Amino acid sequence: MPKKPTIVARSAQPGLFEARAESIVAAPAPKRQPKSAERPTAIKREDAKSMAARQREISISEFFTKNRHLLGFDNPQKALLTAIKEAVDNSLDACEEAGIVPELIVEIHEVGEERFRIAVEDNGPGIVRQQIPKIFGKLLYGSKFHRLKQQRGQQGIGISAAGMYGQITTGRPVRILSRIGAKKPAHLFEIAIDTQKNAPVVLKDEETEWDRPHGTRVEIEMEAIYKKGRRSVDDYVEQTVLANPHATVRYVTPKEEPRVFERVAAELPRESLEIKPHPYGVELGILIQMLKDTHARNLRTALRTDFSRVSDGVAEEICRVAGLSPDARPHRLTSGQVELLFHAIPKVKIMAPPTACLSPIGEDLLARGLETRVKPEFATAVTRPPSVYRGNPFQIEVGLAYGGGLPGEEPIELYRFANRVPLQYQQSACAIAKAALTVDWKSYGLQQARGALPIGPAVLFVHIASVWVPFTSESKEAVASYPEIVKEIRLALMEAGRRLGSFVRRRRRVADEEKKRSYIEKYIPHIGDALKQILGLTDARRNSTVEDLKAILERSRKI
Amino acid sequence: MPKKPTIVARSAQPGLFEARAESIVAAPAPKRQPKSAERPTAIKREDAKSMAARQREISISEFFTKNRHLLGFDNPQKALLTAIKEAVDNSLDACEEAGIVPELIVEIHEVGEERFRIAVEDNGPGIVRQQIPKIFGKLLYGSKFHRLKQQRGQQGIGISAAGMYGQITTGRPVRILSRIGAKKPAHLFEIAIDTQKNAPVVLKDEETEWDRPHGTRVEIEMEAIYKKGRRSVDDYVEQTVLANPHATVRYVTPKEEPRVFERVAAELPRESLEIKPHPYGVELGILIQMLKDTHARNLRTALRTDFSRVSDGVAEEICRVAGLSPDARPHRLTSGQVELLFHAIPKVKIMAPPTACLSPIGEDLLARGLETRVKPEFATAVTRPPSVYRGNPFQIEVGLAYGGGLPGEEPIELYRFANRVPLQYQQSACAIAKAALTVDWKSYGLQQARGALPIGPAVLFVHIASVWVPFTSESKEAVASYPEIVKEIRLALMEAGRRLGSFVRRRRRVADEEKKRSYIEKYIPHIGDALKQILGLTDARRNSTVEDLKAILERSRKI
Repeated sequence: MPKKPTIVARSAQPGLFEARAESIVAAPAPKRQPKSAERPTAIKREDAKSMAARQREISISEFFTKNRHLLGFDNPQKALLTAIKEAVDNSLDACEEAGIVPELIVEIHEVGEERFRIAVEDNGPGIVRQQIPKIFGKLLYGSKFHRLKQQRGQQGIGISAAGMYGQITTGRPVRILSRIGAKKPAHLFEIAIDTQKNAPVVLKDEETEWDRPHGTRVEIEMEAIYKKGRRSVDDYVEQTVLANPHATVRYVTPKEEPRVFERVAAELPRESLEIKPHPYGVELGILIQMLKDTHARNLRTALRTDFSRVSDGVAEEICRVAGLSPDARPHRLTSGQVELLFHAIPKVKIMAPPTACLSPIGEDLLARGLETRVKPEFATAVTRPPSVYRGNPFQIEVGLAYGGGLPGEEPIELYRFANRVPLQYQQSACAIAKAALTVDWKSYGLQQARGALPIGPAVLFVHIASVWVPFTSESKEAVASYPEIVKEIRLALMEAGRRLGSFVRRRRRVADEEKKRSYIEKYIPHIGDALKQILGLTDARRNSTVEDLKAILERSRKI
Repeated sequence: MPKKPTIVARSAQPGLFEARAESIVAAPAPKRQPKSAERPTAIKREDAKSMAARQREISISEFFTKNRHLLGFDNPQKALLTAIKEAVDNSLDACEEAGIVPELIVEIHEVGEERFRIAVEDNGPGIVRQQIPKIFGKLLYGSKFHRLKQQRGQQGIGISAAGMYGQITTGRPVRILSRIGAKKPAHLFEIAIDTQKNAPVVLKDEETEWDRPHGTRVEIEMEAIYKKGRRSVDDYVEQTVLANPHATVRYVTPKEEPRVFERVAAELPRESLEIKPHPYGVELGILIQMLKDTHARNLRTALRTDFSRVSDGVAEEICRVAGLSPDARPHRLTSGQVELLFHAIPKVKIMAPPTACLSPIGEDLLARGLETRVKPEFATAVTRPPSVYRGNPFQIEVGLAYGGGLPGEEPIELYRFANRVPLQYQQSACAIAKAALTVDWKSYGLQQARGALPIGPAVLFVHIASVWVPFTSESKEAVASYPEIVKEIRLALMEAGRRLGSFVRRRRRVADEEKKRSYIEKYIPHIGDALKQILGLTDARRNSTVEDLKAILERSRKI
C-alpha cells in the first residue's frame, strides 16, 4: 500500500490514515454477485453530478410548514391554543419591558366551520412601523433569542409561525394594528409570508385611527377547533392570570358573555434583567466562537467583559491554570489553546451567577391569586431562593390550594408554568411532573399510589423562572429534567407539603374535639337522669350537676 | 365613538371593527391604580424604539445550537448514535440512488475521556467538490426535502447538525473524503460551520489519493459516550442490517474485533420513485402557493401537471364543481377562487396516488433476515398492499420471529423502522407501538397484560415505508398516529399473529400427543402383568396382548 504515506504526510490527524488502512480490507466481495459494488453502472440510475444538480437550500419557513407539529400546530384544537399563547406571550413581554401594567384582550371569533379568527390586543408600547413586517412575516426573527433574560418568548418563531399556520390553512394574511404613542398615528398592516424566501409580503400598510394611545392588536384567521375542558384555551387563560396577577385580561369567546379577569396585584413584578453567560455553563465550541467574536484586545479583558462573575483576578487565575498569558490576543488563540482554557475553567472557583436578574411571582401574590381564583380552605406558597443549572440562574415557586370546591376523589390538578407561561401538554415528559411524582404525599395527609400524583381536593402550582428555560421541544410544553432543577422543585413541594400536612392534621384534631364534645352533650343528660333516680335529686339539682359535669369533662378534655 | 365608521370604511374584514368596539369597553380601570395602564411613563423602562433597535435575524444554526436536543443531540450517548445514524442514512440513500449495492464502514474511535471520533465510509457515487461545503457546513441544505420519495433523509439538517455538534463540543471541524469516479481525484475537506451565518467555512480543500474508485467518508470528532445494550449504536447497526438486507456493513468499535455483517440479498431493492402531491392531501395555503408558482398557462394544465392522478377530465371536473374556467390563468386567481377550488377537490372522485413509488423490503427477505440474525424456531413476514394517508402513499411490513434463544418471560422486543431506518427512542409516542398494544396477542398464544406489549420469546419487526413519513419530531424517533397508518399496522400485526398462533397451537398439539403416547408406553406393560396374573397368560401371550392394546389405543388416540 504505497500511497498511504502521502496522505499521512498531509493530514494532521491520524484518523483518516487508520481509517483507510481498514477501508482497504473493509469491502469483502459480496457472496452472490462478485464486486458488483465496484460497478456503479450495474444499475445506472443517478450519479454525483445529477444529484448535485438537485441540491438546494431549504428555507426555515418551508421546513416548519412541513413540520408544523414541532411548533405546536399538530391539530386544529392545539393550533388555536398555540396561536393565542404566542400572541399573549409577546404582549405580556412587551408590556413588562416597557413598564406598562398589562391589559389584554383575547378574542376567539367563529367565522365558519372549523374556522376561527383570533385576536390578541394589548396596551403595550406598540411596534415601530419598519419592524412590523419582519416580526410577523419572518421566522427566526426577534429581540429575545440572543439575550439571557427571564422572558416568555425565546425563539423568535412563535407569532410568525402562527401567522404562517393561518395562511396555510385559510390563505388569509395576518392583520396587525399597532401604535407607539398618542402623538403617532396607528398603523394597519396585512402581512403574508413568502415561505420559499422566509420573508414578509406586505399586502396592506396604511395609517388608521385607533382610540388606544399605544398598543398592538394581532388578528389571525385559521382552521381551528374551539373546545372547553382540559387543555382548552379557557384553561390557558385562567392559568395565565393566575401566574400573572398584575395583568387584567378580557376574554371573549364564541356565543358567550365576555369574561374580565381583574388583576390582583397593584404593581408590575420586579423587572427581570439580562445577564451574561456564566463560565461554568459554556461549551468548548461556544467558547471558541466567543473569543473569535470578542471586542476585547486581550484574554483577561475578554473573559471579564463577556462573562458574568469574572473579575480580573478570576480571569488571570483561569489563564494561569490554562498556562496562557492574560495578555494574549483572543483572536490569535489556537483551538488547542482555547481547549486548555476550557478545561481550566472548572478548576477555578467562580462565584455563582447573579440571581437578582430573575423575577418570581412571590409567595404573597401566589397565595392571594390561588385564594381569589380557586377559593380553597387553605392556600400556601413557597418561593425558593434562586439556584443555577449549567450556568443559568433559575428559581422555583410552588403554590398549593386545598379544599373548598375541589374534587376530593381525583388526582390533584397540577399546573405547570415556565416564566409565567402555563404548560398544558406533555406533562409526563416534564421535570415538574417527575418531581411531583417522587414526593411522598402520604406523609402530608394526601393519598398516593406509587409513582402517581396524589389523590385529594388540591391544586398544585409549580413555576420555574429562568433566564433560559430548557424546554424539551420548540413547542415549549415540557421542562427538561436537569438534576438541579428537579431537586429545587422537590424541596419547594416538600415545604408546601409540610404546611398542608399541619393544616390537615389540625383540622382533623378539631374534628375529633367536635366529636368528643358532641358525645358529652349527648350522654351527660342521661347520666343526669340516672343520678336523679339513684340519688333522688331535684330537677334543679340534676341540672346543676349536669352543668358541673360538663364543665369538668370539658376541662379534662382540653388538657 | 365617532371614529369607528372611518375604520369600517377602510377595512374589508369586519373583524377589526368588532374588535375595536370591544376594545373600547375592554380596559376596566384597575382597582388599586386608576389608569396607570394609560401611563407608559409610570415605570419607564423600554419603548418601541429601543426595542426595535434590538430586533435581529436568528440563523437556523444558532437556533439548533441552543436547541440541539430537538435534533437528537440531548446527551453524549444519544449524540453518538444520532451522528452515526445521519451519516449512514446519507450513505445508504446515495448508494441506492446511484444503483450501487452498499458497502459501508462504521467506525467509533475513542480519542479521549468522553471524546470519540466517528467515521462512516461508503462505496457510493461520491459528492461533487463544489457541493461538499454546503452539504456538510450548512443546515437546511439538501436534495431530499422538496421531493415526495421514499428515502431515509428528509430534512437536509442531519449530517450538518452532527458536524455542528462535534464543533460545539470539541471545536474540531468535520473531515470529508470523497471521490466521484476512478478517473477523478479524491478530495479531502475540513469544514467548520459559521453558526451566525449558517454557512460553511472551508479550512482544508485538497486533492488526495484514495484507493476507492468512488465513495464518501465522513469523520466527526465529538463529546460522546459509547455504551452497549438497548438503544446502543450496536443495536442500531444490527437493526439497520436487518432492514437493509442488501447492505454489507463493517462495524468497528473501541477495543473490539471489527464485525462484518454480510448482505443476505443479492440485489438492490426496487428503486423508489418520486411522485407529485395528490390533490386530496393538499392544504388551501399550499394550493394557493402552488398555483402562484406553476409554469402552466391555464388552470386545467396546472392541475394536470402539478398533481398526481389528475387527468384533463378530472381537472375540468374540479373546475366545474368549483365554478371556475379550466382556461383561467392560475396566477390571476383570487384567494377566494382558489378556496372554491380547494373545496371542490374532495367532491371529485380522484384515483388514489401511485404506489409503485414505494420500495418495501419484501416478505421473503424480511423473513430470511430474521432467520439469519435472530435464529428463531419460527419466522414469518407480512407485507401489506400500499395505502394512503393525507395523499401520501405508505406501506406497512411486519416481521415476527419466535422461539430459539429469545427470552420467554419478558415483553417481546419491538423493532420499529421508517424507510428502513431503525427508530430507537420515544417508543411510547410512536404509532407503531400504539398499534402493537391494541392487538389481542392472547388469541395468538402469547401472554399479555391489558395495554401492554405481549410477553413471550419473540421479536416483532414493523416497517413503514412512505414518500413522506410523518415523524413527531425532527429527531425522527416516532411516527405520528394517523388513523390510516395505525389501521394498516394493526392488520399486518394480526396477520402475522394468526400465523404465529397456528404455529404455537401445532407445537402444543404435538407436545400433547407426545405426553399421551408416553402414558401408554408407561402403563400398558403393567396392565399386561396384571392380566397375566388374573388370566394366567404366558409371557408370549402377555406380550402380544400388550402389543394389541398399544395398537388399539394408538388408533383410538389418533381418531
